[in-house]
Amino acid sequence: MTLPAQMDALTQLHDGYADTQTGPNVSDLTPFLAHQTIAVPEPGAGQALIKVHLAAVNPSDIHFIKGEYGQPRVKGVPAGFEGVGEVVAGDTPFVGQRVSFFASASGAWAEYALTDSTTLVPCRPDLAEVDAAGQLVNPLTAIAMFDMVRESGADSFILNAAGSQLGKLLIALGRDHGIKPIAVVRRAAQADSLRALGAAEVIVSGDADPLEAAKSVFEMHKPLILLDAVGDQFTADLFFAMPAHARWVNYGKLSTEAPALHHLGQMIFQNKKIEGFWLTRWMKEVDPSRIPQSFAEIQDRFISGKWKTDVAGIVPLSEAMERLPDVLAQPDGKAFINPRK
Amino acid sequence: MTLPAQMDALTQLHDGYADTQTGPNVSDLTPFLAHQTIAVPEPGAGQALIKVHLAAVNPSDIHFIKGEYGQPRVKGVPAGFEGVGEVVAGDTPFVGQRVSFFASASGAWAEYALTDSTTLVPCRPDLAEVDAAGQLVNPLTAIAMFDMVRESGADSFILNAAGSQLGKLLIALGRDHGIKPIAVVRRAAQADSLRALGAAEVIVSGDADPLEAAKSVFEMHKPLILLDAVGDQFTADLFFAMPAHARWVNYGKLSTEAPALHHLGQMIFQNKKIEGFWLTRWMKEVDPSRIPQSFAEIQDRFISGKWKTDVAGIVPLSEAMERLPDVLAQPDGKAFINPRK
Repeated sequence: MTLPAQMDALTQLHDGYADTQTGPNVSDLTPFLAHQTIAVPEPGAGQALIKVHLAAVNPSDIHFIKGEYGQPRVKGVPAGFEGVGEVVAGDTPFVGQRVSFFASASGAWAEYALTDSTTLVPCRPDLAEVDAAGQLVNPLTAIAMFDMVRESGADSFILNAAGSQLGKLLIALGRDHGIKPIAVVRRAAQADSLRALGAAEVIVSGDADPLEAAKSVFEMHKPLILLDAVGDQFTADLFFAMPAHARWVNYGKLSTEAPALHHLGQMIFQNKKIEGFWLTRWMKEVDPSRIPQSFAEIQDRFISGKWKTDVAGIVPLSEAMERLPDVLAQPDGKAFINPRK
Repeated sequence: MTLPAQMDALTQLHDGYADTQTGPNVSDLTPFLAHQTIAVPEPGAGQALIKVHLAAVNPSDIHFIKGEYGQPRVKGVPAGFEGVGEVVAGDTPFVGQRVSFFASASGAWAEYALTDSTTLVPCRPDLAEVDAAGQLVNPLTAIAMFDMVRESGADSFILNAAGSQLGKLLIALGRDHGIKPIAVVRRAAQADSLRALGAAEVIVSGDADPLEAAKSVFEMHKPLILLDAVGDQFTADLFFAMPAHARWVNYGKLSTEAPALHHLGQMIFQNKKIEGFWLTRWMKEVDPSRIPQSFAEIQDRFISGKWKTDVAGIVPLSEAMERLPDVLAQPDGKAFINPRK
């Protein structure tokens, strides 16, 4: 295959980190990204070049372009953590195959992405493009955090932002493994669809006295893990309403509140813990066999219909600067960027 | 030995827990305790009766009588977690011996205390009474938490309330094991004596911009454990100024503030953790051989002068209701109750 010299991409305007904590919302991309024509990157030793079919847009991507994520930005380099595409060149036996990938060296919001060859995940032919494009970040996070839930030994677990794509994956895992999901959402309108999906209980944080509702739910189900993508005061209050030995596992920051610890003594006397989950660290620390096993499970779950990708919209890369914020603002479903249009 | 039927004691006025979080200060004991004459308790199976020589007064005792500790109060039963005395009866081979004890069944602020026989710690004859009376709670906590410090692998650790009895024990352990103590205190007046004791650095929270001072100290020493008896906002700020992988280990609540987590993202990206330490749980979970080994080490450290008990005052039990608050209000040293006067 002859590769072009240049490509379209959404490139980062800043280096390093920002000193802000504004959450994963964005109404205007122009302070952070530019639609540019740049050179197609060349794969070095251990790298693979991917012709991107479809790229996902995750909350972590938005944190990243704003400089609020755990990795530094690199000015002039395309953004976008993951996607699906065809391996077109590089130091890998997968040339010519369709793969899901982490765009570790040059981002997925571009016609071509550059990645470490070790992170390529070959896709089954019957895996849909939207499932393949978002196969890594959310599904692998769901599998990894659900492993923690299973290890907790409890018959239930709590998750907030439960209407998110990741939330729905977690609820379905709970349903299929007989561990009751206690879903926390902001709006009552989300409750019925989450119950239909498999949530055993739904706590609506916008209701009157949601903490009292939570207390009776926790009394009944005794959850030991709180999977938290929000990090607000209500999350802290929920944590302190959980039984002894509870763990608050923060993995996202939808809220800009700084939650206060009103019952720190529970850390001492009830053996409670606050910690974080980061997929990047999990992948380094987990038994390496768990990762390919997880991808087999992920693809099987999508293909068999146990998991489903709700699509808010697929935006052509050429229109993404203008249209992506509106798609991201939709209450349900996931946004994608198509760099071939 | 013929035992009397009755004894003097400071008995609790309340059952269970209070809903307050007022810290370990007390200006008036009368809402919580009464000086009463009650029946001498009778040891049952597995129990030992101790004729109390001297009882310690720890911050945890004050939390306990206020209903703010991890165990429920029992109305009419003497308070006081620990002391030294002679075993006078019970299901134990130690009858007639001098022991340090946890007063698990009937408290140490009385002429006689009742305890589980398994918790008796025989004392070397050359161990001073004040060292023996406070041998368990503070010294064992210091040994247990310093084990965590050693496991962290760092060359330094942070402790606050560093001028407390427990703080001084920790500083001396750091000094003797070559792990630099970074001491946090409220008043500059405490700094010199803690440096003389072995503190590598002293951060005075009452100074102008103590957080900036802390940041340069942490940059140099890279501490990974923060041993926290305070639980205020400054503690949270120190935690977020520590390097990646830092652990905030809370074991006391001198402050009534509810610290806010301003950089929750560090839990995710820097693998930081917040947890609690409770001696009662540690004793159940640690390798059982560590406990007698610790007591041999504790007695050796006191007798050899590596540790020293600073005495704020020894109050006769008959005068404790009136005089104990004043002794507890002294900035340095430990209070004791003598039930034989």
